[in-house]
Amino acid sequence: MTRSVDLNADMGESFGAWNMGDDAALLETVTSANIACGFHAGDPDVMAATMARAHEKGVGIGAHPGFRDLAGFGRNRMQVPHATLANEVRYQLGAALGMAASVGARVRHLKLHGALANMCTEDEALARACYQAALSVVPELTIMAITGTAQQRAVEALGCNWVGEIFADRAYNDDATLVDRRQPDAVIHDAGEAAARVVAMVQEGAIIAASGRRIGARIDTICLHGDTPEAVAIARAVRAGLEDAGIVVERFAI
Amino acid sequence: MTRSVDLNADMGESFGAWNMGDDAALLETVTSANIACGFHAGDPDVMAATMARAHEKGVGIGAHPGFRDLAGFGRNRMQVPHATLANEVRYQLGAALGMAASVGARVRHLKLHGALANMCTEDEALARACYQAALSVVPELTIMAITGTAQQRAVEALGCNWVGEIFADRAYNDDATLVDRRQPDAVIHDAGEAAARVVAMVQEGAIIAASGRRIGARIDTICLHGDTPEAVAIARAVRAGLEDAGIVVERFAI
Amino acid sequence: MTRSVDLNADMGESFGAWNMGDDAALLETVTSANIACGFHAGDPDVMAATMARAHEKGVGIGAHPGFRDLAGFGRNRMQVPHATLANEVRYQLGAALGMAASVGARVRHLKLHGALANMCTEDEALARACYQAALSVVPELTIMAITGTAQQRAVEALGCNWVGEIFADRAYNDDATLVDRRQPDAVIHDAGEAAARVVAMVQEGAIIAASGRRIGARIDTICLHGDTPEAVAIARAVRAGLEDAGIVVERFAI
Amino acid sequence: MTRSVDLNADMGESFGAWNMGDDAALLETVTSANIACGFHAGDPDVMAATMARAHEKGVGIGAHPGFRDLAGFGRNRMQVPHATLANEVRYQLGAALGMAASVGARVRHLKLHGALANMCTEDEALARACYQAALSVVPELTIMAITGTAQQRAVEALGCNWVGEIFADRAYNDDATLVDRRQPDAVIHDAGEAAARVVAMVQEGAIIAASGRRIGARIDTICLHGDTPEAVAIARAVRAGLEDAGIVVERFAI
Repeated sequence: MTRSVDLNADMGESFGAWNMGDDAALLETVTSANIACGFHAGDPDVMAATMARAHEKGVGIGAHPGFRDLAGFGRNRMQVPHATLANEVRYQLGAALGMAASVGARVRHLKLHGALANMCTEDEALARACYQAALSVVPELTIMAITGTAQQRAVEALGCNWVGEIFADRAYNDDATLVDRRQPDAVIHDAGEAAARVVAMVQEGAIIAASGRRIGARIDTICLHGDTPEAVAIARAVRAGLEDAGIVVERFAI
Repeated sequence: MTRSVDLNADMGESFGAWNMGDDAALLETVTSANIACGFHAGDPDVMAATMARAHEKGVGIGAHPGFRDLAGFGRNRMQVPHATLANEVRYQLGAALGMAASVGARVRHLKLHGALANMCTEDEALARACYQAALSVVPELTIMAITGTAQQRAVEALGCNWVGEIFADRAYNDDATLVDRRQPDAVIHDAGEAAARVVAMVQEGAIIAASGRRIGARIDTICLHGDTPEAVAIARAVRAGLEDAGIVVERFAI
Repeated sequence: MTRSVDLNADMGESFGAWNMGDDAALLETVTSANIACGFHAGDPDVMAATMARAHEKGVGIGAHPGFRDLAGFGRNRMQVPHATLANEVRYQLGAALGMAASVGARVRHLKLHGALANMCTEDEALARACYQAALSVVPELTIMAITGTAQQRAVEALGCNWVGEIFADRAYNDDATLVDRRQPDAVIHDAGEAAARVVAMVQEGAIIAASGRRIGARIDTICLHGDTPEAVAIARAVRAGLEDAGIVVERFAI
Repeated sequence: MTRSVDLNADMGESFGAWNMGDDAALLETVTSANIACGFHAGDPDVMAATMARAHEKGVGIGAHPGFRDLAGFGRNRMQVPHATLANEVRYQLGAALGMAASVGARVRHLKLHGALANMCTEDEALARACYQAALSVVPELTIMAITGTAQQRAVEALGCNWVGEIFADRAYNDDATLVDRRQPDAVIHDAGEAAARVVAMVQEGAIIAASGRRIGARIDTICLHGDTPEAVAIARAVRAGLEDAGIVVERFAI
């Protein structure tokens, strides 16, 4: 049996006169693009251009909603009522649908951004509120959930389409949570090391903790970053490593 | 043959903690609601609530995009590049589609707001850019165009679905343009007068200028306001007058 | 010795086309106005108009900064880095200083708004960061701090000018914290009861808990609300009650 | 007599997570910095950091207000009522004053940004409304006005402190207006040519049109750009050229 895996990255994070990220380079490497929807980053021009380019490259398009916090890039935790947050997710997803339709593309998945995503790895009710809102707009949408967190528990409880995600460049604890960024080895900076680890995790179908411990996990997609030269190098190394190991790198099936 | 006509009004213009308009009252009178999409007014909570109520009442739902100018309520003229404006229309329409889908409703039409609408009564290329953008998202969408203006010329050039709109409370010049608001009789304040005039215009299929002159026009929908007690009184009088004259008041057909 | 006390209320909370509160009525009752600075409410036009009216009435002007969260009216708790929050306080205070200078008025005090204020009743370091930032702009500024909370501990630690504030319409626990809003008697709705309680607290120089317990406290100013007819009635009753008891109602001294 | 001239550039145009411009490099070259105030670019953190650095380098600090149009970077023309615009200028200037005070610096001048600046080169009443608003906050403020335009007529009519500005890299018509950007030689790309031309203009006290025509003009400050490597090279060449010609490059006197 041939294994396959999806590679995803955040994109379309420019805003107005301000550029961010090297989307053109990333689109050569990833198979799914998480596109900012205007609340924490992105604007209608950026969304349209990014979706058109992703569509042309055969890269799967996802809505990437975040908190309504442009100044904080969606990285500040906010205590927004669930009902309001649900409507904000619907709005952002709807906007993404409209932009995609206008370039002949389609929104295949949804992934939460930044502080909202982090809070949803800890708070299943919050994750469920966000995902349920998205599914009320597009019932067959695929949710990208971080494996082994409250995000996964939420999609399982909802019984919706979902894919499990791991990080290429973050070390894991023995309970499958991420090593705190303040720890020295929390982030993997070496492209070769990141690639080898990802290949092993995909082959074994398990998260490999820093201790070496294996935790069985659903791994459908690998989260890559593209905002630094180092990150782009890791992205490329991960893709090459997977292909060298005979793993097919392609958009997750829907 | 029975004549029929649609009555439309702007709604969902509250934002966050701030309320505007008496949407509940208007929903008893109108047959189409133009719902703000978050750029000049409205927010996801307001959109969801307003659409749910309109849907429940059988009132047709329209997207009502405007300039990205919350502080100015979309009333300041802005020189935004057409391509950017087109994407802003797509984004707002998409957001409206998402919100509508989540309450089981449907977006039937699009009407431009405020300064953007005014500019489009004068500038056919601008109107066409906005309408074409909307149609790139929903090709069968009905455009609400102000009769006898560049808005009408744009929809005719595009060959799309459209309905022609007149104002219940504004006096017309002999060339079918609106009397300048700085003129003493530009706005009709008397509910009975407004109603009688609207009935006559619908029956004759013509705009009746202040001079008494008739200008043949496509009249499918009447624009009502709801932001003052007087406006609500006019809205009710217009509806009653039309019904008394045997004209069916109903959502425009699509 | 004659006792005196200040009465304060939030004002200038309209935004763009949206009105909020009855500032004109409140300006007849209060002696200090906390004026929103544009991040959670207020805009330059509203600030200018409200400050001009307050100045004309001899009402003391205060800057009332909040989180950068217009859609949430500054009521959502946000985890913003202290350094960023400090700069946001400086910015809002500076804007208030500019608007005040242009109408010949002066900013006498600063009071935090909404969720930011609530968080600062619990988190002394956060309160200190905000207040220190304000004092870095205007060293002699008076901080309005909620009596008996981390806000008071922060101003005491800073050794700055400050006044202690209690609420006219909220019940207190035995430890001087507010009774949780979800409890039945957390909010006092009866104007007479609110007035009698405030008079007693000012006369005794103590918070009177719901149990009747007295907690010695610095009480320089009473927080009134003005967003409901009931609230305006309470505001007037409190003022009348204080004056009847021979307590001078005037701006706090600086 | 030794001639001297000021060199100014826009700075502090980053926003949130987005960087723009190479402020550190520019601060080595210019003598005055026009600092964005948060409406079209800049945020409180960016303002504080930029002002602190400018102050440390002895570079004069100016407020650089623009339209409330973050998505458009203040480059879209907007028809905002003069009274509202005046309050928006007051607000932004006030915010700049607050930020400057907190880092021990001082706001010496004001220069308008983008579309607002362009409109004010054509519309004296608009320019006067903006400048008068600024002077209502700081009467002794120096206005930076583009030489030979309605901006200059406005400051002359107001009788306020002002300095006259020319552009280092833009060709002039015979009537002292800028050559339209759509013309081939509108923008000067060669650093040596730009420098030579600026030196000649400062020495002769005149604008030198593309035709060679001299138009006597008040030239106190030269506008430099810093958003491209070419622009930084021009900035350095201009400074070196002026110094080589014995012209003192220093902050304008106030």
